[in-house]
Amino acid sequence: MSMFSKEEAQLLEQIMRSRRDVRGNRFIDKPISKEVIDQILDAGISAPSVGFSQPWEFVLINDLELRNKVKTSFFEENEKAKELFEGEKLDAYSRLKLEGITESALNIAVFYKPSHHPVLGQTAMEEAGVYSVVCAIQNMWLMARALNVGLGWVSILDPNKVKKVLNAPANRQLIGYLCLGYVDVFYENPELERLKWAKRKSKNDVVIQNKYE
Amino acid sequence: MSMFSKEEAQLLEQIMRSRRDVRGNRFIDKPISKEVIDQILDAGISAPSVGFSQPWEFVLINDLELRNKVKTSFFEENEKAKELFEGEKLDAYSRLKLEGITESALNIAVFYKPSHHPVLGQTAMEEAGVYSVVCAIQNMWLMARALNVGLGWVSILDPNKVKKVLNAPANRQLIGYLCLGYVDVFYENPELERLKWAKRKSKNDVVIQNKYE
Repeated sequence: MSMFSKEEAQLLEQIMRSRRDVRGNRFIDKPISKEVIDQILDAGISAPSVGFSQPWEFVLINDLELRNKVKTSFFEENEKAKELFEGEKLDAYSRLKLEGITESALNIAVFYKPSHHPVLGQTAMEEAGVYSVVCAIQNMWLMARALNVGLGWVSILDPNKVKKVLNAPANRQLIGYLCLGYVDVFYENPELERLKWAKRKSKNDVVIQNKYE
Repeated sequence: MSMFSKEEAQLLEQIMRSRRDVRGNRFIDKPISKEVIDQILDAGISAPSVGFSQPWEFVLINDLELRNKVKTSFFEENEKAKELFEGEKLDAYSRLKLEGITESALNIAVFYKPSHHPVLGQTAMEEAGVYSVVCAIQNMWLMARALNVGLGWVSILDPNKVKKVLNAPANRQLIGYLCLGYVDVFYENPELERLKWAKRKSKNDVVIQNKYE
């Protein structure tokens, strides 16, 4: 049973604080080795899962034709999104680079595969299965950062169109579409914080004692 | 911009592999200091969030009366769950300790608070907001482990009953109910793996190249 030191916990904190959502304007043209990809996938499959169900599947997409089809869905959904913002927000939104589908070295589509049988721990909260897959993605994100690989999560997509492009079986659910690659720089702060798109909340804003008033 | 070494990435791997879902049979009677709780919460709020929306709230529950009310919901949902298993599975299920609500030093209920405005990145996949909260929980879980604190995620609960116990506003969504405390031992392997409840999948079982066949 490993016990960790204060310094080791501090290193974890540093990895967490250095993790960024990376878009196509930061990726550089450098392949990721199979060894590094395997380390990132190993982090994913060491995530917690409800009832040890491990309900995840990872589609590694090198094929540029497939990626361009996914990118078409991004363009469509991004145009729809612009209709929801106005004035300065719309100007700022339009200037943002929000994906790196073709600029990145690798795309990974992460799916939830539901079980055919009842799953321990999932009987009262069905959504716990999907949450397990999100835990896997967060593990991958942290491991990518520790390996100095940038990762961006693209959520401006029609999940059903992506499923079709990847020929996914009907019962699969797209949870995350990830773009991975080496970068020229990891920003010190989240890009949306730097651009004053949204303010960082403090702990006091989000911590409640015992119950809501 | 921090660059991390191979050894640092390996330490992250070790923390991930050592993380366990901890239940009431492993918690010991030892309080968690405010400093350690703050470190775990800081890990949560350094998680990624869609559009930098930080849509999380953390309710720290010390009050034993509130916890006992939550435990009532666990008992109810656990009885319903037993009806779904049969034979050896039912026997095994009935022997498992599946929560540590009152044995742990602290409970944390983690909620999703939706935004009143459109959120960048959440316009095509509304569920990305909830996923941000799950990323926060996974960060907390890893940081707790690095600080040698056990954490168990209790999903055998009626989320609406928990909301009522904690007086949560109608628009909040319970994502995770966490039990935290020091432990007598972290198991080397997940308990459900040790008990042969479910088998560990290999990477080959869950990795697909480019698209589904």
